[in-house]
Amino acid sequence: MISVIILGAGNVATHLFKAFKTSSEVSVIQWYNRNLDALRPFSNQVEITNDLNALKDADIYILAVSDDVIGELSSKLPFENKLVAHTSGSVSVYDLDKKHKRAVLYPLQTFSKDAKVDFANVPICIETIDKKSYPLLKQVAKSLGSPTKRVNSDQRRVLHLAAVFVNNFTNQLYRIGHEITEGEGAEFDMLKPLILETAKKVQDMSPFMAQTGPAKRNDKKTIKAHLKLLEKPQHQEIYKLLTDSIQNTHGRKKL
Amino acid sequence: MISVIILGAGNVATHLFKAFKTSSEVSVIQWYNRNLDALRPFSNQVEITNDLNALKDADIYILAVSDDVIGELSSKLPFENKLVAHTSGSVSVYDLDKKHKRAVLYPLQTFSKDAKVDFANVPICIETIDKKSYPLLKQVAKSLGSPTKRVNSDQRRVLHLAAVFVNNFTNQLYRIGHEITEGEGAEFDMLKPLILETAKKVQDMSPFMAQTGPAKRNDKKTIKAHLKLLEKPQHQEIYKLLTDSIQNTHGRKKL
Repeated sequence: MISVIILGAGNVATHLFKAFKTSSEVSVIQWYNRNLDALRPFSNQVEITNDLNALKDADIYILAVSDDVIGELSSKLPFENKLVAHTSGSVSVYDLDKKHKRAVLYPLQTFSKDAKVDFANVPICIETIDKKSYPLLKQVAKSLGSPTKRVNSDQRRVLHLAAVFVNNFTNQLYRIGHEITEGEGAEFDMLKPLILETAKKVQDMSPFMAQTGPAKRNDKKTIKAHLKLLEKPQHQEIYKLLTDSIQNTHGRKKL
Repeated sequence: MISVIILGAGNVATHLFKAFKTSSEVSVIQWYNRNLDALRPFSNQVEITNDLNALKDADIYILAVSDDVIGELSSKLPFENKLVAHTSGSVSVYDLDKKHKRAVLYPLQTFSKDAKVDFANVPICIETIDKKSYPLLKQVAKSLGSPTKRVNSDQRRVLHLAAVFVNNFTNQLYRIGHEITEGEGAEFDMLKPLILETAKKVQDMSPFMAQTGPAKRNDKKTIKAHLKLLEKPQHQEIYKLLTDSIQNTHGRKKL
């Protein structure tokens, strides 16, 4: 049994805790958070603490905390030479205090507080400095059913950046779709199957091959009509910029 | 049995033909295209023609052709007072020659040549000018298993515009994700579960509620690092504009 202590009480920490509870290979022996209130709902399932000096001995300490406190928290840990992994997409493994065996366990997925997470759909990017820690972290990820990938800091940073495009920015395009349909008495619900199909399509086909629409066809008449239909200047800007981007990708003339 | 003649040989025409073949309520009795070659693979399944004067009598004529030829083709049809429907998201129902009973049957989905289409996931927007045509078109759509919705021209235009955002523009964000990961030796495949989850999330939750990430949190350090990491000026522009859009939506300060 691999013993784990989780530090932090955000979405990633909570989903990891819940997932580890179902694992037969990993046992969460303690859960730390500065503010104990966030952990109280779990106090009958695991030992909780807000005292770093009370931390037990464990095989792995997982720091699932905000990017800007990872370094400081790792320095404050009152032990050394133990495996300490953070879960951030953008923080370097070297931000962890060098007194530890430093590593990263970055789950590449969007976590909501309430939505249930199936870790089979959560690729976990692993980075370790010492070679021995890698198989252990891989075993931990596998025990959740997650696909794993060894990813260095540069690759992880780029995956996190790309995740902002395909998740946050894509979601904002959904939001704009929501605004412009509901604003005209049309139903956003009508777009939901299209949203799902667009995401499904690139599971087997490159986004390059999957592209269709007025920008790719350079259908100037439709593009012009759409720009006229958009009421918010920023929506027009986004329309123009992404149309231009599609035309750059597909070698069409600019607007 | 409702008799249908399809005009056009693009993706929509082809997927409609294939779907109608499995319907017990609709029979495609003829398929027209200006260029007969595109229809030859189906010549053992349906009568094909490239001669408008050879068109048979049918309950519905479906014009699944390019936006810019809908009006002209409808004028050339050598009959009147028959139900003629186009399938475009952006063309007015009044673009059809007024000698016909004019209608629109707009499938709100992305169609690829090779990908199989399940019409249960294709909402069909119906618009008719005369009241009698509506139940007939609704029956046709239902026979494909499609959800249907009565949608006027303004609503349809706005749905088509929103579809460009949630389909074409979203797909371009996937493309950018592909470019920036593969450019750094990371794997786009790692992002596929996230892409799917992002689309699934808004099936039950508003895009407003689903938003996360550095733009929403106004995490300036990460935003700055991401902009530095992006090599193409246009990718930086897109990053800035969509970050700004998210912050406008969620009431954060501008960059």
